[in-house]
Amino acid sequence: MSASTAAYLPAAAADAAGAEIPGPHVVVLFGASGDLAARKLLPGFFHLECAELLPDSYRIVGTATDELDDAGFVAHAREVVARFSRIEVGDEAWERFAARLSYVPTGAGAAALGAAVGKAREDLGQSRLLHYLAVPPVAFEAIIGTLVAVGLNGDDARVILEKPFGHDYDSAVELNQLLERAFDDSQIFRIDHFLGKEAVQNILALRFANGLYEPLWNRTNVEFVQIDVPETLSIGERAGFYEGTGAYRDMVVTHLLQLLSYIAMEPPVALSSKALHEEKNKVMQAMRMIEPDKVVRGQYQGYLEEDGVAPESDTETFVAVEVEIDNWRWSGVPFYLRTGKCMAESRHLVALDFREPAMRMFPNEVQHQGANQLVFELTEPGSITADFQAKVPGATMALGPARMVFRYDQSFQTDRQLEAYERLIHDAMLGDGTLFTNAEGIERLWAISADVLAHPGPLHPYPRGSWGPEAARELIAPDEWRLPERESEEMKAESEEEAE
Amino acid sequence: MSASTAAYLPAAAADAAGAEIPGPHVVVLFGASGDLAARKLLPGFFHLECAELLPDSYRIVGTATDELDDAGFVAHAREVVARFSRIEVGDEAWERFAARLSYVPTGAGAAALGAAVGKAREDLGQSRLLHYLAVPPVAFEAIIGTLVAVGLNGDDARVILEKPFGHDYDSAVELNQLLERAFDDSQIFRIDHFLGKEAVQNILALRFANGLYEPLWNRTNVEFVQIDVPETLSIGERAGFYEGTGAYRDMVVTHLLQLLSYIAMEPPVALSSKALHEEKNKVMQAMRMIEPDKVVRGQYQGYLEEDGVAPESDTETFVAVEVEIDNWRWSGVPFYLRTGKCMAESRHLVALDFREPAMRMFPNEVQHQGANQLVFELTEPGSITADFQAKVPGATMALGPARMVFRYDQSFQTDRQLEAYERLIHDAMLGDGTLFTNAEGIERLWAISADVLAHPGPLHPYPRGSWGPEAARELIAPDEWRLPERESEEMKAESEEEAE
Repeated sequence: MSASTAAYLPAAAADAAGAEIPGPHVVVLFGASGDLAARKLLPGFFHLECAELLPDSYRIVGTATDELDDAGFVAHAREVVARFSRIEVGDEAWERFAARLSYVPTGAGAAALGAAVGKAREDLGQSRLLHYLAVPPVAFEAIIGTLVAVGLNGDDARVILEKPFGHDYDSAVELNQLLERAFDDSQIFRIDHFLGKEAVQNILALRFANGLYEPLWNRTNVEFVQIDVPETLSIGERAGFYEGTGAYRDMVVTHLLQLLSYIAMEPPVALSSKALHEEKNKVMQAMRMIEPDKVVRGQYQGYLEEDGVAPESDTETFVAVEVEIDNWRWSGVPFYLRTGKCMAESRHLVALDFREPAMRMFPNEVQHQGANQLVFELTEPGSITADFQAKVPGATMALGPARMVFRYDQSFQTDRQLEAYERLIHDAMLGDGTLFTNAEGIERLWAISADVLAHPGPLHPYPRGSWGPEAARELIAPDEWRLPERESEEMKAESEEEAE
Repeated sequence: MSASTAAYLPAAAADAAGAEIPGPHVVVLFGASGDLAARKLLPGFFHLECAELLPDSYRIVGTATDELDDAGFVAHAREVVARFSRIEVGDEAWERFAARLSYVPTGAGAAALGAAVGKAREDLGQSRLLHYLAVPPVAFEAIIGTLVAVGLNGDDARVILEKPFGHDYDSAVELNQLLERAFDDSQIFRIDHFLGKEAVQNILALRFANGLYEPLWNRTNVEFVQIDVPETLSIGERAGFYEGTGAYRDMVVTHLLQLLSYIAMEPPVALSSKALHEEKNKVMQAMRMIEPDKVVRGQYQGYLEEDGVAPESDTETFVAVEVEIDNWRWSGVPFYLRTGKCMAESRHLVALDFREPAMRMFPNEVQHQGANQLVFELTEPGSITADFQAKVPGATMALGPARMVFRYDQSFQTDRQLEAYERLIHDAMLGDGTLFTNAEGIERLWAISADVLAHPGPLHPYPRGSWGPEAARELIAPDEWRLPERESEEMKAESEEEAE
């Protein structure tokens, strides 16, 4: 499982459930006092500790610009874990966790960080290093420099990076070169928390562990695919980041096209990191250049009044994209992506729309988009839905909409479920890059985005709380976005109307 | 819709829901005081009346050996409808229905029946005749003779027959010849109440109104099919009938192979009676002769002690059969049928078992029969279930059993649902033979049964309340019967065990 060359290190063990437990680790958490650390990383490590998925021997050395001492960091950590943890924070568990924490302010210098790591390692014996760069990309170069300067980039080290991985092709290549000067590719873990979701991993299980769906998974049977991630949140106080980024760079390159590659990939030769990355990269290589006229950009009304937004900002807060894949499996099948801020709902939905039956023979058979869809709801707890047409009860052969549903939390005990960040941190500590993105893929996605980044189309305003600009509906027409979804009560009412 | 040549008769109308209303009718109900009339037919006509699916102008003339007058028959009808109707019997509705009833004892002779029908027709103007033969086959010849004698077999008449349609090939041919001397094929409706079930018609809808499943419906993707109809009931007081019949003749030829033909048929050119019968007949033509060593016969312990059973009776009360279909779609895919009395559960289940994925790549992937099954539960209200494998929540990629479910009564208003007999009576009054069996098919099924009827294999005893003899498990091995089914609670427990 481990891809590291540091073969002398203590190996991973496995717990009773078959989950591997990483060997001894020192985690160096850059951005330790920041927002992501507060919301996801410190609560995530705490939960992994409580779930007994971390080794007995590990330490977390926090570092950030805030001038804190160890006690100050522990107090901060307690506060944010209490606030954001999804499990109760018991005193005993907390004391065990808190004893692992220490802190070095950035201002103390590289040597101080090296000393703190060295001190942590003294207690542990042989251990690995995991550097978590929960910082803006502008800080990457300095941090890598520090790690190299104090020798924390050896064979026994791994590094996790947060997006964005560049803002265009050139900057992505530059970032990858920077990283590869200090680390081997197998040591670099580019995190995309979408890929850590149970429901995304379940796409792989549904496709490749079953004889029931994969035979349908191609251009012969699929009419179109949509990946839809609307968000109700505004940009909040993130104008500084968002203004220079926009929805396309923030969501499409990182999350949506990654997700697409899971839907579209060929069966890998094994469920290994290498084999999955090869298949994902093949899909990305097969993607056509994204054409500016196949992209709809939107901006929610009121965005220009947000704090920190330029008065005539051209930044899009909404984007819809049609992606085409030139390979034997998908040629001619459009993949529609949509995401935006201040929309009507927060959802993470993937839908495969199946082609009409070859002929219509039922009395009221009006085939329409969505009559046959397989839908993955990726928001926890996750569900899979198959929409089809069934006979309406009664004296005719009239059809009505029907639905088969699988809900993750109704079929499985979910108390062992890991949040996406937890899963990915745990995987990185095991050296398993299966669910991470890699340099070749990232560069390819920026490359196919070059035209649309160079020549962005017009910006369409849309009301807050809406489903985005009208142009996004036109992009997909005559197909349709599944959302907003007809609820099953409405389905009932409709089938009743049809029957009356 | 009407296949009758009696084109001068008032045409069917349609109600607001699109259901057709037959034109004026006189129904002649043979066996009017019998068990089927009491349990199904009189309550069925009453419900059709209340559902406003019958014309304003219709009469039911009952006839049987019992010496009743009209009032006596109405009193009997009220009693059995009150007892067996699934809807409340209101006084007003009852009075309306009762006014349509009259009765002629068999003993009164053919002329009396002719006169009673003539009297009923006087009120109605032009009307059709529907003769319902709810009588044992031994009575068919005399009844047909009566109908011919008094001229009740004209173009405007139709006849519904109850099974059994013969007891072997020769007797089936003889029966068909008898019928066809008096009626045109389009006037003859051989009823198989299995085919009137909503859930059976829904098989047609699922297959031919959707692009989602039909592409999987073939030997490339399906490992085997099973049709399983266990019954908890004993033969009760029906030894007289059952001793000469047995499970094979009673259930396999009539119900199970008919059901099989719906599962296995090619898409018809239209949803018409003619087109469906052509496709069903093609499947039946493609069935191999059933080999005696592919049939397991069982007899429940205690059968020999039932009233009216011969002390050394060789009659089987259980049968399991492997059927092979030699055509392009199904070659090499076994169809397993099973049915029996005094079994552990009463169910009507059809399951398609899909082939294993082409390779195993998940850590705990042990493929087994039933990992991927599409299951139709035909017992009202009916459901469709897809079993597949999903990722068990947690830090591994381990798989566990998962299930998608569609339940008819959760997706549709079922208050317009017709019971199987109601649906079929209504269809026959409209001249629509789509859901009936036909002469060619019946004769073919008896023909492929010739070897097993001539050389029945040994009889295996089985305990009451069991799943039948061990030999039936051996017949299907290494495949498995789906029933008894693991419940979803057990699935949960199992996946939990696997995870621990």
